[in-house]
Amino acid sequence: MDWGREAQHRLQDIATLSAPGAGVTRFPFTQEHADARDKISQWMNAAGLKTRLDAACTLIGRREGPPGSPTFLIGSHQDSVLGGGAYDGIMGVALGCLALEKLAADGITLPFAVEVLAFADEEGVRFPTALIGPRALAGTLDDRVLDMCDQDGVTLAGALNSAGGDAAAIAKIARSRSDILGYLEAHIEQGPLLESEDLPLGIVTGICGIERNTVTFTGATGHAGTVPMNLRQDALVAAAHLIAEVDRLAATDPNIRATVGRIENHPNVVNGIPREVTVTVEIRGTDDAIRQRFAGELKSFCAEISCNRRIDVSFERTYEQTAVSCDEGFRKLLAGACEAEGIAPRELPSGATHDASAMADLCPIAMLFTRCRGGISHSPEEFATDADMGQTVTVMARFLQDLAAHIADQPEPAQAAR
Amino acid sequence: MDWGREAQHRLQDIATLSAPGAGVTRFPFTQEHADARDKISQWMNAAGLKTRLDAACTLIGRREGPPGSPTFLIGSHQDSVLGGGAYDGIMGVALGCLALEKLAADGITLPFAVEVLAFADEEGVRFPTALIGPRALAGTLDDRVLDMCDQDGVTLAGALNSAGGDAAAIAKIARSRSDILGYLEAHIEQGPLLESEDLPLGIVTGICGIERNTVTFTGATGHAGTVPMNLRQDALVAAAHLIAEVDRLAATDPNIRATVGRIENHPNVVNGIPREVTVTVEIRGTDDAIRQRFAGELKSFCAEISCNRRIDVSFERTYEQTAVSCDEGFRKLLAGACEAEGIAPRELPSGATHDASAMADLCPIAMLFTRCRGGISHSPEEFATDADMGQTVTVMARFLQDLAAHIADQPEPAQAAR
Repeated sequence: MDWGREAQHRLQDIATLSAPGAGVTRFPFTQEHADARDKISQWMNAAGLKTRLDAACTLIGRREGPPGSPTFLIGSHQDSVLGGGAYDGIMGVALGCLALEKLAADGITLPFAVEVLAFADEEGVRFPTALIGPRALAGTLDDRVLDMCDQDGVTLAGALNSAGGDAAAIAKIARSRSDILGYLEAHIEQGPLLESEDLPLGIVTGICGIERNTVTFTGATGHAGTVPMNLRQDALVAAAHLIAEVDRLAATDPNIRATVGRIENHPNVVNGIPREVTVTVEIRGTDDAIRQRFAGELKSFCAEISCNRRIDVSFERTYEQTAVSCDEGFRKLLAGACEAEGIAPRELPSGATHDASAMADLCPIAMLFTRCRGGISHSPEEFATDADMGQTVTVMARFLQDLAAHIADQPEPAQAAR
Repeated sequence: MDWGREAQHRLQDIATLSAPGAGVTRFPFTQEHADARDKISQWMNAAGLKTRLDAACTLIGRREGPPGSPTFLIGSHQDSVLGGGAYDGIMGVALGCLALEKLAADGITLPFAVEVLAFADEEGVRFPTALIGPRALAGTLDDRVLDMCDQDGVTLAGALNSAGGDAAAIAKIARSRSDILGYLEAHIEQGPLLESEDLPLGIVTGICGIERNTVTFTGATGHAGTVPMNLRQDALVAAAHLIAEVDRLAATDPNIRATVGRIENHPNVVNGIPREVTVTVEIRGTDDAIRQRFAGELKSFCAEISCNRRIDVSFERTYEQTAVSCDEGFRKLLAGACEAEGIAPRELPSGATHDASAMADLCPIAMLFTRCRGGISHSPEEFATDADMGQTVTVMARFLQDLAAHIADQPEPAQAAR
């Protein structure tokens, strides 16, 4: 079996289960979602997994292990953004099923149970929340999100129940930490690093913490022809200095990614000196302390600008999410699996959030990134090759085998890889 | 007579002739314009001037000189922007009338004819053109502008004719260069320089040349969390470096005013690396060669950015207007008049265009700037004090006297002050 080719075939097939429009649009708890679950059930069955739907509408395929053995989880999400691609999320489900199908085909049994999880909603596009599937399993779901509504006024609880879930039972599906060995997720990289280094896949070190800040510079407008340069309080010039500094400072630390993505300028006319400029500064990093120190340095920089340029600056954090580390033991096993397959083990951070972020509250996590063309995601242009997906399947399967071997060498299996 | 107080009174009075809304809105060839002309005729009559309307709807008040003597012109415009102030334009007309009224009150006759010109349209808000009054006098009006329409579909020719002008006769009203001694215009500064130096008025060295450029930076977008800093082609960072450089470089030359007033960013989202940024770069300077060299330096800077940051940059000039110099001899006479009135003679460039820009094609020009509060113009907040306007009237009157004396000393009057 050419696992990569099969993955490509399955992903192109399930991509047709989409709302109308360019690319893939598959929101949670819709008809497309129900159709996709049928398709994924077939993949699970082909891998010898027994399927069921949990209260949070996560489709679960399970193969039992020896009596009393713990469970290892593999998962990702089935949903897409509006007009998204055929790989983000769903690829991890497909490759998880294929990795287990490959082990079965190779006649390998594992000393633990395995499950593939197809989560309903990671993108958070339909409801103003996300990750309810993994949060329910981790026991960290805040019940209040069930009352949130989509733009048609449908509550999350209502949508969940109508799709076969059971909002009232969600609290009961939290897994016991001692039963779960770990969680592995494969995902497209959504960035250009692997492509730039000509590598099929990479091992994720952790999922970045994120903070978003809104910085507003207030100066004074005036006629572009009549106000001498030395009497100006040009808010856009002040903002430009910050934008350049964000880029300069972030480049000094490989753990940091910082971006001014949004800018609004007033009055924004060719012959008017800018009076007020608002920018967003998003900072991501796998080390929360480094990220926070970075933000502090930018704040000091803004204070200098304010003083030197007679510009009022407000710097406000509007969002924060802490970093999550991938398990050291799992990372070593994945590196070994790569080497065994002739792939240089390349570690890289995840700048984006994933289901694994929430699963980290339940168990040790691991992630693999598969190279994607041009680093593009959330677009109909998303693409991963047969070969790269095939190698990801192989590394996942070998990781499970190596984990089994590793556990066999250890007195305490559940803690072994931590 | 307190000339400043009288100026204030007249300007507050004529400010009531406005379309509804905050501030003053007096567009050309409207009922407000007709009403304003009646008011200005009274001012002219009080100064002993005989009034008439020319084909371009310029209201002219004239006092004859000795037979065969040349004519000196004083002028400004009656119109305002939408929701403008009570001083921009109309103040020059009021102060011109008062300067002549003062000379008459002081029993001073001049050895030349004088005219006060109240031009119809300098702001160019109603029609996509402006300065038809002074261009008609200078013989530089392009006939084709008469076919331009306002937003109601009224042609400029139609509006002009309905307001008492005569579009067909415009070509005939060009003045003979040998008949005109010069042109003097008083205007609010529209900038903060005089206020910052505590001076009531200043002498304009010239009217800046202007160029406008559109600079577009094209890089590549990507996820703010997944693209490492060193692989980014962030168009906003590139633009920020230019914005900072425009400011830095302009501050090194007092003749230059350069402004990035407008910025557009795509996709302009908090977690997306900016792909394409377009900014406007407006450059003004009294020396065209210096301005063009400045633009050239910015272009070179952009070429460096393009190379260092793998960003495509296009730098296109969308507009250019050359600089106009104020007459050296007139500037000396104005400086002498200031000194005689105990005012430090401060020279400064005009960053904005004025009626004088077009009059420069007919005759030597001079301009005075009157301090305005906060440097504010084109706003209901526009304000000039009684005292500053009074001093401007006095300097204008003394300038005319000194010009008369100067001419008497010279064999060739019309060239004397050039």
